[in-house]
Amino acid sequence: MITVYSVPGSPYGRSVMTACVEKQVPYRLERPAGGSKSPEHLARHPFGRIPAIDHDGFSLFETQAIIRYLDAIGEGPSLTPADPKAAALMNRAIGVIDCYFFDDNSAKTLVFNRVVAPKFGMPTDEAAVERSIPRTRQSVEAFARLLGEGPYLAGEAFSLADIHAGCHFEMFTRAPEGAVMVKGTPIEPWLARLEGRPSFKATTWEQLLQAA
Amino acid sequence: MITVYSVPGSPYGRSVMTACVEKQVPYRLERPAGGSKSPEHLARHPFGRIPAIDHDGFSLFETQAIIRYLDAIGEGPSLTPADPKAAALMNRAIGVIDCYFFDDNSAKTLVFNRVVAPKFGMPTDEAAVERSIPRTRQSVEAFARLLGEGPYLAGEAFSLADIHAGCHFEMFTRAPEGAVMVKGTPIEPWLARLEGRPSFKATTWEQLLQAA
Repeated sequence: MITVYSVPGSPYGRSVMTACVEKQVPYRLERPAGGSKSPEHLARHPFGRIPAIDHDGFSLFETQAIIRYLDAIGEGPSLTPADPKAAALMNRAIGVIDCYFFDDNSAKTLVFNRVVAPKFGMPTDEAAVERSIPRTRQSVEAFARLLGEGPYLAGEAFSLADIHAGCHFEMFTRAPEGAVMVKGTPIEPWLARLEGRPSFKATTWEQLLQAA
Repeated sequence: MITVYSVPGSPYGRSVMTACVEKQVPYRLERPAGGSKSPEHLARHPFGRIPAIDHDGFSLFETQAIIRYLDAIGEGPSLTPADPKAAALMNRAIGVIDCYFFDDNSAKTLVFNRVVAPKFGMPTDEAAVERSIPRTRQSVEAFARLLGEGPYLAGEAFSLADIHAGCHFEMFTRAPEGAVMVKGTPIEPWLARLEGRPSFKATTWEQLLQAA
């Protein structure tokens, strides 16, 4: 049994929980008591972010490290292609999400202001949204080209990249501008395929809010 | 033979070339003709950054994806621990470098202003340096705790994490503030161990400038 320290709605946290479901690793979601900057949580994650996990006393943070760990220990089918080139496409896509797409100057700012802030009654920074649009659009276009015909980011096989990127894009399309950017691109049918999986259905923001 | 599109001095590019040496993969360094925003380079890297590689027509960008690919195809000893927990420590350290330590608000800004800018006769933004110090110090302290007794980031075995983090820390200690932050921590002997390796000696900024 794995404890996932996160909150419903975090695409990073969802990435971990989706990987748990795919790999048949039982988990429970726990919100960090006292928030992510509490001494207790900082002992798990020195930068005070989410998610972090505990697996029988083994404490780990960094979403990529966690989902790769789950892939190694879980019983479900491997989520890392054996072919080096296919694995490289998987790793490239994960990197694009973390380093370009969900960057402060890109989709992260859009999602925060259009999806997260309204949900919690916080003000929307329209100037920040405006500034984030060009780089977000560039990332979406590049991502669509990398995905190509698919069906998945590494080619034929569903992989960790689809989990990681899918959780971010689902959040992204909750922003009206995000939905428009994705419409008509290969991202749209790819995302629909992912959202049909039990692992994605079990880890939506709404679903986790009911469970947590 | 792999072509590495990069420039001497880039810690990301060096990470790739160090991995090539460790894995016994022959490479040649090529500066992107017309710069990293040229149409030719943008076809390799849609975000116009370095490094990118070409391996017999297989084009790849994103440093993490490239070094993992080299580990899979090269003949040198594996640079990924077989034990899932040790591999998790490797992946965590790589993530800390990319997401926290070498972030725009952290060591990247310090290194740019103290090391890169003076080298190319560009002005130094002292206010930006000042702002970057607290978060840089936090990252260095967290990293030193993760490294612990070592000898390497994943424990006993030298791994991709040492390559990736080592190239960044070598650059970091060229900044006077960086050298001070590292002094007396476990990072100092760890970095000295790495700099003693042939792969690190062959890929210093100075060495690559002579070769390129």
